[in-house]
Amino acid sequence: MALNINITKELKTVEKLIKSDINKEKTISVLYNYIFKSNGKKIRSRLNLIASSSSKNTDRYKLASIIELLHTATLVHDDVVDNASTRRGTMSVNSLWSNSHGVLIGDYIYSKAFMLMVEIGKKDILSELADATNDISQGELIQLDAMSNIKISLSKLKKISYFKTGRLFEASAKTGAMLAGANKNFIKNIGESAKNIGILFQIKDDLLDYSDSLKTGKQSFQDLKEGKVTYPFFFALKNSSQKEKKQLLSFLGNQSLNNKKALALITELNGLTKTKQLAMKFYKNSVNAANTINNQFIRQEMIELAGIALNREK
Amino acid sequence: MALNINITKELKTVEKLIKSDINKEKTISVLYNYIFKSNGKKIRSRLNLIASSSSKNTDRYKLASIIELLHTATLVHDDVVDNASTRRGTMSVNSLWSNSHGVLIGDYIYSKAFMLMVEIGKKDILSELADATNDISQGELIQLDAMSNIKISLSKLKKISYFKTGRLFEASAKTGAMLAGANKNFIKNIGESAKNIGILFQIKDDLLDYSDSLKTGKQSFQDLKEGKVTYPFFFALKNSSQKEKKQLLSFLGNQSLNNKKALALITELNGLTKTKQLAMKFYKNSVNAANTINNQFIRQEMIELAGIALNREK
Repeated sequence: MALNINITKELKTVEKLIKSDINKEKTISVLYNYIFKSNGKKIRSRLNLIASSSSKNTDRYKLASIIELLHTATLVHDDVVDNASTRRGTMSVNSLWSNSHGVLIGDYIYSKAFMLMVEIGKKDILSELADATNDISQGELIQLDAMSNIKISLSKLKKISYFKTGRLFEASAKTGAMLAGANKNFIKNIGESAKNIGILFQIKDDLLDYSDSLKTGKQSFQDLKEGKVTYPFFFALKNSSQKEKKQLLSFLGNQSLNNKKALALITELNGLTKTKQLAMKFYKNSVNAANTINNQFIRQEMIELAGIALNREK
Repeated sequence: MALNINITKELKTVEKLIKSDINKEKTISVLYNYIFKSNGKKIRSRLNLIASSSSKNTDRYKLASIIELLHTATLVHDDVVDNASTRRGTMSVNSLWSNSHGVLIGDYIYSKAFMLMVEIGKKDILSELADATNDISQGELIQLDAMSNIKISLSKLKKISYFKTGRLFEASAKTGAMLAGANKNFIKNIGESAKNIGILFQIKDDLLDYSDSLKTGKQSFQDLKEGKVTYPFFFALKNSSQKEKKQLLSFLGNQSLNNKKALALITELNGLTKTKQLAMKFYKNSVNAANTINNQFIRQEMIELAGIALNREK
């Protein structure tokens, strides 16, 4: 599968637009440029451009930039929350500068996104994105308090995946469709497909944390070491005997974890298999929703993105 | 001087409105309720209600709540940035929970404010508040990088005061006037008056940090101990001999500061007198701007608030 070339070209325009923000204060422009120097996957802005692709509205690029800004602001704040030292292969703002810089430049990027939204001036888009931003912070807060909570339910785990990841995927697609003046049904369907791709994306993220770090470029077993209960651990725990449970609990939040031993037990207890089955469920949901879309180009793009989310190795 | 009783009553309605936000997630509602349990001065929402007082638009209370939410979100993030342990006499979120909780509940409150703004649905109000929020983060970032910078200029210090404090005062008054459907001239004048009250408010804040902590209820000399160059230190430094300069620099960022000795030298070098003169200048600016307002009630309220900002002892 190859990503659509036109949309990839359009994303270059979005990138330029984001980088064109110039602040007279050097301290701000240095931070801002550092953050946007390394390009992310831009899957959310891609979704947004796909959803608005039937329109010639020139605000399409601005809206896709807004989506990227919102996403980046959450990443910068997340790195403070997770005390992460790297992001997209370079040092995080909080580790290169400080937590304070991370908090404030995150606020700067958030409010920049809202300023641009107001320029577009469409109430439905503003409402959807303000809502989504609020839901993301809720997802993060719920996750924070679910830390080391081995009694967490599957529905709570799904809510976290939806709020912290699926929600912005959903809003990216919906607001793209809104900008294009699409009908309610199309907005609903593309939103549903995107939401499921987002949750799938998060499930894969959790899964990749339990895999070879050479492939992903990220450190493995970070979630487990931080005490984060994600799907593989959850399913393994559900399937464990008293003795195995005790062993699993000894892994959680253990900074000097024996990776091989942990992976072996979690695999044996079907933690990875069950998580892959769940990923497949959300893949199917997203394809089913995409199949209700009449526009052939958009339908195919959505199905392709779902496939990429399912099969990604990093 | 006594604050207007009707506006004080209206602020109770605003308070109730803020507290009526109920989140189903216990972890979020507990944090939210904790933050809004202790009531602040509400000077910004008061300004907002004064500015909209000629109108019967029922969105007045909602808009004043939005102003309080935005202000509170900046406070919660500031406490993370400053590593502050207390706020409004109780423990800060970051000290009672964690920095992560502070960052995320701040984001939650920010986006809540934007959601409510979208409900009001006035583009000029949205634009002004998104702008102001962005300026506040800029002010904080500039201040952060001005830390321990003894070469900072007076104009940069004023920019910090305007962006981090004056800007939201200005936006509170302007958006109140916008909601009331006031003319451009009135919006400009009340904004100008409020902006100057805000800067005055910040100057007094800096001044109060150099005074008796028993009166203010806050710890004294925090700015100096943290290495923050504020007006009293700035003016003293400007007025110092080589020998005195060396002494002053030994105070900056000194956690085991001799308060009495520091205060004596900064007073002797006219640091406090010069700061008071500057405060008086902004007081006069705000009164002059207020005097261009025709509506007698609003004019008097603005002048009274300027007086309160000038004379406040805590």
